[in-house]
Amino acid sequence: MNTVPHFQEELDHLKARLLEMGGLAEDRVRSAVKALVERDLALVEQVLAGDTPINQLHIEIDSRCVKLLALHQPMAVDLRSILSAVKINTDLERVGDLAINIAEAGLRYLGHAPVKELIDIPRMADIAHGMLRDALDAFVKRDTLLAQQVLDADDALDALKTQVFRELLTYMLQDPHTIEPSLDLILISRHLERIGDHATNIAEDVIFMVSARDVRHHAH
Amino acid sequence: MNTVPHFQEELDHLKARLLEMGGLAEDRVRSAVKALVERDLALVEQVLAGDTPINQLHIEIDSRCVKLLALHQPMAVDLRSILSAVKINTDLERVGDLAINIAEAGLRYLGHAPVKELIDIPRMADIAHGMLRDALDAFVKRDTLLAQQVLDADDALDALKTQVFRELLTYMLQDPHTIEPSLDLILISRHLERIGDHATNIAEDVIFMVSARDVRHHAH
Repeated sequence: MNTVPHFQEELDHLKARLLEMGGLAEDRVRSAVKALVERDLALVEQVLAGDTPINQLHIEIDSRCVKLLALHQPMAVDLRSILSAVKINTDLERVGDLAINIAEAGLRYLGHAPVKELIDIPRMADIAHGMLRDALDAFVKRDTLLAQQVLDADDALDALKTQVFRELLTYMLQDPHTIEPSLDLILISRHLERIGDHATNIAEDVIFMVSARDVRHHAH
Repeated sequence: MNTVPHFQEELDHLKARLLEMGGLAEDRVRSAVKALVERDLALVEQVLAGDTPINQLHIEIDSRCVKLLALHQPMAVDLRSILSAVKINTDLERVGDLAINIAEAGLRYLGHAPVKELIDIPRMADIAHGMLRDALDAFVKRDTLLAQQVLDADDALDALKTQVFRELLTYMLQDPHTIEPSLDLILISRHLERIGDHATNIAEDVIFMVSARDVRHHAH
């Protein structure tokens, strides 16, 4: 019984669905940040109400992974690919959740006068999205060099998070009216940092999948 | 070749290692919160420096899961148990990371005069620990009722987080000197809330493992 081509086909399908899920998650984060910057309340509400497709995809991908393992009992890199898919699926679902968290903080933020023009937060979102896209690309192409680049990009995100924090602190110290909305911007910057963390997790999974080398828990 | 008892033995060993990892993660969070409450700088430093054992266990458990899948090609509930173990391992590693995050915020907090006596934060830690322990217990005993209790406990944690936030906000509005340390307490309360989220993830995995029923993405 030749199950190998069938397995590869199913694996390709799984990868395509993961990419689709990554695209959905990214869109939702992008909308949440856009709604914040443009003070678009309708778009905030849209993000808050719109997590059904990504949640359905999360369940579908998980069940695809279980089926692939049960029916084909893959070995070596194929086995590691499916285990990576299980983990990546979890990471992408959390990114979807973070879009909700950003929208929730955004909703509170829009209830106040704007603290400042938002420059660094959209920049953080761009970096996080780039990391996420590269990490998924690295997964599909089994490209460990690209995965390594994702790990390196995390420092830029971290530096921006610190910068956002310091700047908002000065606003809060000068004017107590800015304390509440500034807190929400700080939380949003942490949520964006966590999207970078999820991209980092995915990149580490890719390196493990390709090389069976565990790069987690080492300085990078 | 009768591999079944061998498999069960290996699975029991895997579960024991996961419990050990859960214990380690809990100890680290407990120390981080104790260090904060008792203003014990040496203990903070100990938490910051002590993540090697949990990280090693994380890698070991992952590799046990890969081996179990490759050598025994388990089906049905056994397959789902190992996939759950992969996910639970990830959740516990993140709980270990959150101990570091709490210690980092604690280190900054101890650089300021105390804002207030800390009551709700240790209470949040107790609830989060209870949830984590029950979730792991539910995993080992395949106890879906206990898993459901974990899902229900999350509301109490959420309510305390909101209470912490509101209370600290009043301090910050009254006295700008409290802004920086209050921010760190708010972040710590969010880190503790996320430990509850990880316990919730584990409980959901347990229900999926036992019943092949996906309770994620439904109101609970």
